[in-house]
Amino acid sequence: MALISGDANNKLSLDSIRDSLIRQEDTIIFNLIERIKYPINSTLYKEPSSSSSWNISGSLFHYLFQETEALQSKVGRYLSPEENPFFPDNLPASIIPPSKCTPVLHPAAESVNVNEKILDVYIKQLLPLFCITDQADEGNFATIASCDIQLLQALSRRIHYGKFVAEIKFRDCTDQYKPLILAKDRDALMKLLTFEAVEEMVKKRVAKKALTFGQQVTLNIDDSSKEVKCKVDPSLVSRLYDEWIMPLTKLVEVEYLLRRLD
Amino acid sequence: MALISGDANNKLSLDSIRDSLIRQEDTIIFNLIERIKYPINSTLYKEPSSSSSWNISGSLFHYLFQETEALQSKVGRYLSPEENPFFPDNLPASIIPPSKCTPVLHPAAESVNVNEKILDVYIKQLLPLFCITDQADEGNFATIASCDIQLLQALSRRIHYGKFVAEIKFRDCTDQYKPLILAKDRDALMKLLTFEAVEEMVKKRVAKKALTFGQQVTLNIDDSSKEVKCKVDPSLVSRLYDEWIMPLTKLVEVEYLLRRLD
Repeated sequence: MALISGDANNKLSLDSIRDSLIRQEDTIIFNLIERIKYPINSTLYKEPSSSSSWNISGSLFHYLFQETEALQSKVGRYLSPEENPFFPDNLPASIIPPSKCTPVLHPAAESVNVNEKILDVYIKQLLPLFCITDQADEGNFATIASCDIQLLQALSRRIHYGKFVAEIKFRDCTDQYKPLILAKDRDALMKLLTFEAVEEMVKKRVAKKALTFGQQVTLNIDDSSKEVKCKVDPSLVSRLYDEWIMPLTKLVEVEYLLRRLD
Repeated sequence: MALISGDANNKLSLDSIRDSLIRQEDTIIFNLIERIKYPINSTLYKEPSSSSSWNISGSLFHYLFQETEALQSKVGRYLSPEENPFFPDNLPASIIPPSKCTPVLHPAAESVNVNEKILDVYIKQLLPLFCITDQADEGNFATIASCDIQLLQALSRRIHYGKFVAEIKFRDCTDQYKPLILAKDRDALMKLLTFEAVEEMVKKRVAKKALTFGQQVTLNIDDSSKEVKCKVDPSLVSRLYDEWIMPLTKLVEVEYLLRRLD
């Protein structure tokens, strides 16, 4: 799992990107299973009331996530073209020097960041869809926020891999992409980037992964005879890819391509 | 996954603890699989040389882990009897008020903490056993350290659950435990706490889980016909439980019991 970097000729390997995207599905599903063992915990995401004794601005989650990013920024997380911060303003500088790899993306890649959308969808749509509603006893803020952050960073990495995918497609078919980019034709670019058969395959594969990784493994020999209880609904994981991950990835691809000739 | 707390009569449920321990196996294996997709990355754990430009004391990993714990402490992580810090000195106070649950553990529980041993074993023995050796291109410090921290916290939670297990065993068989505690007879306590048949079952179950969660899931129909490539060696996961997790849990149980009558 090395950072993506060009080889001596600055050549991107489509195979290594495809392998990484498939492996990232496992990461997303593991992190999803870990997060949804807890209820939503709405207190974590709520703005504090003026009477609150917490001396922070914004929600507890916002505070924890922003501080975590600041810490990770210091050790160079956002020097990597694979990582995009959720709170890019005022991030501290890295104490680690940047890698000497030849950059493979166009410099405009840095300005493509859909994390605000990812965070909004995550809190407003995904958590209510996947998690049970709150019980009387909330708490576990740090533990739950850690799961959220791991999962959000995995989703963000997956979605922003669209930049690498778009770069390869652009290099392979520059003649096809160039006129559409010059015409700023988003719809035509989106159409050119969409492969329905591939998307169907991804949806099927992630459902199968959810079923596999979400199963209750016991030592009973006749596991197969009883109904499988799954920790995450496979059809919801398919939907997660269908309605959010794949469309947001394509949005990243289009945004990147629109800046590719700058 | 609510915090462990007594019911109205301060009664611990053995079933809920057993369920939690079994569920924690999944968490440990997921986190292990995520960590070992990266090489060891020895730079992360190395003390900086005096010529280093990093203006921190201790290794990068030490710095990141300690700062993460400080942040999590502020939102109440270590108010929970299930959580034990790796760097307990000078942790900032929580801005969240403590829960009003009746404590189920003896107050001496707080002084039982084997995290120093866990961290030592993790860096010196587990990482070299599970991870591939470093390649030329290191990096990804923040990402790898996050995986380490998630895994170490999962291991620590599992191992320190020994306190709850010991409390239940003490309550159920006080007459058996009391004389051994008064005599400070560690060996006899350890013997009383050891159930080899149960340990064998745990070792088998975690190996089966590693095989299940570590498999490469594809849409090929004849998955069964080809050799299963596993992301983590199931026999190593068994060994992890046999040589480290279960012995350290029993160490926690003995240490807790020795303080149980204080």
